[in-house]
Amino acid sequence: MTSANTRSLPSNRYFSPLPAQRELASELHQTIVDLPLVCPHGHVDPRLFADPDYNFGSPTELLLIPDHYVFRMLYSQGISLESLGIPRTDGGQTETDHRRIWQTFSEHFYLFQGTPTGIWLADELNSVFGINEKISARNAQAIYDHIDQQLQAPEFNPRQLFHQFNIEVLCTTDSAIDTLEHHRAIQESDWQGRILPTFRPDTVLNLKTSGWKNNISALSEVSGIEVVDYRTFVQALEQRRTFFKSMGATATDHGAYTAYTEMLNSVEADAIFQRALQGVVTDDDATRFTGHMLMEMARMSTEDGLVMQLHIGSFRNHNTALFDQFGADAGADIPIATDFTRDLRALLNAYGNDSRFALILFCLDETAYARELAPLAGHYPAVKLGPPWWFHDSINGMRRFFDQVMETAGIYNTAGFNDDTRAYPSIPIRHDVWRRASADWVAGLQLSGLIDEEDARMIVRALAYDLAKQSYRL
Amino acid sequence: MTSANTRSLPSNRYFSPLPAQRELASELHQTIVDLPLVCPHGHVDPRLFADPDYNFGSPTELLLIPDHYVFRMLYSQGISLESLGIPRTDGGQTETDHRRIWQTFSEHFYLFQGTPTGIWLADELNSVFGINEKISARNAQAIYDHIDQQLQAPEFNPRQLFHQFNIEVLCTTDSAIDTLEHHRAIQESDWQGRILPTFRPDTVLNLKTSGWKNNISALSEVSGIEVVDYRTFVQALEQRRTFFKSMGATATDHGAYTAYTEMLNSVEADAIFQRALQGVVTDDDATRFTGHMLMEMARMSTEDGLVMQLHIGSFRNHNTALFDQFGADAGADIPIATDFTRDLRALLNAYGNDSRFALILFCLDETAYARELAPLAGHYPAVKLGPPWWFHDSINGMRRFFDQVMETAGIYNTAGFNDDTRAYPSIPIRHDVWRRASADWVAGLQLSGLIDEEDARMIVRALAYDLAKQSYRL
Amino acid sequence: MTSANTRSLPSNRYFSPLPAQRELASELHQTIVDLPLVCPHGHVDPRLFADPDYNFGSPTELLLIPDHYVFRMLYSQGISLESLGIPRTDGGQTETDHRRIWQTFSEHFYLFQGTPTGIWLADELNSVFGINEKISARNAQAIYDHIDQQLQAPEFNPRQLFHQFNIEVLCTTDSAIDTLEHHRAIQESDWQGRILPTFRPDTVLNLKTSGWKNNISALSEVSGIEVVDYRTFVQALEQRRTFFKSMGATATDHGAYTAYTEMLNSVEADAIFQRALQGVVTDDDATRFTGHMLMEMARMSTEDGLVMQLHIGSFRNHNTALFDQFGADAGADIPIATDFTRDLRALLNAYGNDSRFALILFCLDETAYARELAPLAGHYPAVKLGPPWWFHDSINGMRRFFDQVMETAGIYNTAGFNDDTRAYPSIPIRHDVWRRASADWVAGLQLSGLIDEEDARMIVRALAYDLAKQSYRL
Repeated sequence: MTSANTRSLPSNRYFSPLPAQRELASELHQTIVDLPLVCPHGHVDPRLFADPDYNFGSPTELLLIPDHYVFRMLYSQGISLESLGIPRTDGGQTETDHRRIWQTFSEHFYLFQGTPTGIWLADELNSVFGINEKISARNAQAIYDHIDQQLQAPEFNPRQLFHQFNIEVLCTTDSAIDTLEHHRAIQESDWQGRILPTFRPDTVLNLKTSGWKNNISALSEVSGIEVVDYRTFVQALEQRRTFFKSMGATATDHGAYTAYTEMLNSVEADAIFQRALQGVVTDDDATRFTGHMLMEMARMSTEDGLVMQLHIGSFRNHNTALFDQFGADAGADIPIATDFTRDLRALLNAYGNDSRFALILFCLDETAYARELAPLAGHYPAVKLGPPWWFHDSINGMRRFFDQVMETAGIYNTAGFNDDTRAYPSIPIRHDVWRRASADWVAGLQLSGLIDEEDARMIVRALAYDLAKQSYRL
Repeated sequence: MTSANTRSLPSNRYFSPLPAQRELASELHQTIVDLPLVCPHGHVDPRLFADPDYNFGSPTELLLIPDHYVFRMLYSQGISLESLGIPRTDGGQTETDHRRIWQTFSEHFYLFQGTPTGIWLADELNSVFGINEKISARNAQAIYDHIDQQLQAPEFNPRQLFHQFNIEVLCTTDSAIDTLEHHRAIQESDWQGRILPTFRPDTVLNLKTSGWKNNISALSEVSGIEVVDYRTFVQALEQRRTFFKSMGATATDHGAYTAYTEMLNSVEADAIFQRALQGVVTDDDATRFTGHMLMEMARMSTEDGLVMQLHIGSFRNHNTALFDQFGADAGADIPIATDFTRDLRALLNAYGNDSRFALILFCLDETAYARELAPLAGHYPAVKLGPPWWFHDSINGMRRFFDQVMETAGIYNTAGFNDDTRAYPSIPIRHDVWRRASADWVAGLQLSGLIDEEDARMIVRALAYDLAKQSYRL
Repeated sequence: MTSANTRSLPSNRYFSPLPAQRELASELHQTIVDLPLVCPHGHVDPRLFADPDYNFGSPTELLLIPDHYVFRMLYSQGISLESLGIPRTDGGQTETDHRRIWQTFSEHFYLFQGTPTGIWLADELNSVFGINEKISARNAQAIYDHIDQQLQAPEFNPRQLFHQFNIEVLCTTDSAIDTLEHHRAIQESDWQGRILPTFRPDTVLNLKTSGWKNNISALSEVSGIEVVDYRTFVQALEQRRTFFKSMGATATDHGAYTAYTEMLNSVEADAIFQRALQGVVTDDDATRFTGHMLMEMARMSTEDGLVMQLHIGSFRNHNTALFDQFGADAGADIPIATDFTRDLRALLNAYGNDSRFALILFCLDETAYARELAPLAGHYPAVKLGPPWWFHDSINGMRRFFDQVMETAGIYNTAGFNDDTRAYPSIPIRHDVWRRASADWVAGLQLSGLIDEEDARMIVRALAYDLAKQSYRL
């Protein structure tokens, strides 16, 4: 299955085809390859670390079923989600034979040629599991066996991998109404890995969230503040932020359809909130309330110092039939065009010049990179740009980001890398792809005489480590 | 005029300047250079093949007058369309001396430096007519003579070129009210070339088409169904689709200003249709009706299996004065920004998960590639992406397409190449440009360690041949 | 401070890392390096040339305080504008120690790694002041001394630099209500440098300009036509254009938020104008009036032959607090998305086919390049495309412009380069960056077999010199 030398991937992979650039990129990459991984934003489940005996399950449970990057591509080619073992919301029947699912996946692995998912999987199988063959129909079961065997080994557990992966800190993403019990368990354990929560209040800020009223009840309960109006809502949120901060959080995270912001007065805000409690909120209410609450979150950040992340522009659950059958995160979230210049102006005018405030922006509309995001980050002291997000967390996505952002924003108004993943074992590979893409880009700058060697080394280090740590106040 | 060796164009043309990539691209190109041409979408006139003695006319009639790519560029530099022999709609006087037109064109051939038109013309003159000099004022008449002479040769006719060009199948684009008489003539002839019609109903679906009522009368006539209301309109369209399919069609084609779709109920649809018959239709009526009829076309495609093509986002006849003098297709169609995520959602929600349905999308707003089109194609089973269209059917346009689409959509959710041309003799060159651009892109992937040689060969073949054939069910 | 050889910058700087391309680019660059600089659009103050003894002041006054590219980047990293000596509108205290400001700047010079500002400054310090060290905290004061010393030398004055820089002609940008006294002084002096005014009427055309009524009074005064209604307003503008033309102007320049154009009749136009005089103009009034006046400017251009420049899409003074403290041009102008296809149609339909008219378009939304600008320029005889503007006047910005514009517009529908700068000593560097970027791009075309050597040389010359001169009728 595996050769003696499991590092069979080309050492110069993902660099430019130009020999001089490959060589320099490789040298630069060597200067950062051993830096610890700073993981300030992602979706790894804290239970992995709370339970000292956590087991990943089968190869299919680890690598396929939870990864909507994988199953959306198979689905796009007509393979049903049922046949891939994706659980139905109605509990209806789905494939339970994990070997059969793995076989289906393997027979279609060619679909991932040239995609980030293809790279991550191949690299992960190689570096984590020591597999250096390309997945195919022929070797599917042998690879399954090989992975399965390793997954049962006692050293193959999340805590040990954390150190093996050289992770310095890993931040999870946690609902505002989460009790952070898993984080508490980690902190109370004798394990020393640094796992921090991140405050994500979308499900209470967005009045159109399904189950919003239940979420408000839960918010009352966890905060100990009975939320009956806008004033108590804000108090409860402040309480939760204080709690998250006490549990080690350094950041909040917010997802919104657009970057629209608007300051409501407390009477307007309360009127909308009351309509929401009564279940008669309009779309316009919800848009304005989210826009207002983003400003409130910014205000609180100036006060408590939590870094504010803003992820903009995904049309969630675009495919209604699929959503009805499989729920959210089924690979059917599609980006839309985004305006930051006008939409975010109210928030930036209120807090953008405040040195206590830090705002990290993410979007799925790359046209905003050079047009809006880089000029905003290159002006407002509070603004930093997050790395390419989601569909753009790829070799080309990174190249476009570097090319379109850096000349105007400058390198030091960006926030380094974050892997944004729930696929824990893929973390080292994702960081390595970023580090390689950075090194290659910086090598190009140096070879073109735009920067010198000293600058080149400073930049690759900043992109690999320093900027993430500083931007997230870790 | 021509040297003994008429292949004087550099064999590595259009590849990257990097030697290692050129070499690998060239090797990959060699593996596909002899594959037959699949031409699933274009605008070649079927008369070329219906008439066994079809004559192309003069070099100017063949290469200049019908090609709005050529004359729009000359016009943009102040050369009147009259002086280029473009017919006026009022029958007014235009230049009739084809040698003089050719001279004017030749004196301005430098305007096409680095443009696709420049490449196509140079390559076509070289490979089809054996001319290896650059067109200039000096050699204009000699080149005219040379082409003219060959055009008179008996072997220089469309049917013979079809085989010489190694075309496997060529689909034309035909109005819904076309009787397909030329297609019938081809099928009834003893010539074996595979020429298929494509069903294009724009002029009856778009209520704002000039002459719409006449088109409806024609539809009644050709279908044998008297169209008096929405119900009979749909029946007549179904009749035409059945007829086109019986004549070999495998696809429909639709052009629309935006991708807006909306399901009307039959009462609403009929009310709008009646207003249209009475000549009192509003812009909003027309937009909604087109949006609804696109959904109807999708429904019919799920039933009859015709692949649905959708071309979005051209502001037609932008230059009113020119339109009044020269009519449509005068080089004055200008793209607009396009939204697929929201506009196409109704249609995709209704039919996007249906495995019987195939929808191939084209647009002129490249910002939709990475933001909307690739995520849609990488999710919905029905969606495939057409190749770069119109202005983007160029070396850079293809590079941008590969770079922005493939990582997210995957290669196998694209539909290969189509030449989309009415310039019949340019077909082999257009395919060759695509094949070279593909080979170069794939060579870059291989050299960067993103794919291996096996994958590289599979991909270039898919892009050159397999994907077009499969996507169009040919 | 400086070595004997002050040209220590790599001679192949800013070219591709690919050796063959660098070499060819270098050869092509050599063919244009000695061509005079044509500067058809910029913001150099004509006083520099009116006063034969003009002194640039300190290094900080020359290079930092007036350059919002420099101080916006420092501000984005939390350095106050007060500490950089930027004057407050309320006359409040700011840093006056120019050496201290220079030190602050130098300590943060790493922020400009890989940015155009970083390149311009390094190159300017090298080629104009003979400094070949990288600016740092350590050498800050020594570099300050060195520059300061040279600034005091008698040969270091704008008139002498004009010839040293090999400038053929330099156009300034002047308010419609400017008396052009400095231009008159230049023309009446015995100095032979060609400095021309450009007519910029934004502050009277845009009814929302602060102080608009005062501007109208000033317009009445300078034109000698009492502006009391729309008719006299137009007369006064015509008078000013005639005056500017008599002073050597060949062009006008217009900045607008969007490209919206609309023809009002004179009754509508006058009604809006009267509301403006009464101070009751609405946003919609202002938008329509600007749209109308752009058309009037186009009409006048067809009559007087002044080339019309249009700069679209900057959200000015985005940061209200900063605007209140420091006024306009404080580095807080942020681009927005732009539509030319629909917005500019009225103007193009009226004048776009007129051979007397020349319109040069600029925008900050690169998505319009391939989608709208190139197709418009590749069709309308009047339209030319200006070079990459502002944030996009950079190596990558130029690459994107070449790649996205040229295939469709053709090279000869672009307007060459303009430096658009108020930083006079940076002019040669800015042109050199453009020339290098052009040479590199053209070298790539030649190496890819898209053009031959003859074309390559013609193109680099056109881009460096001919197109600017022709497009601006200089």
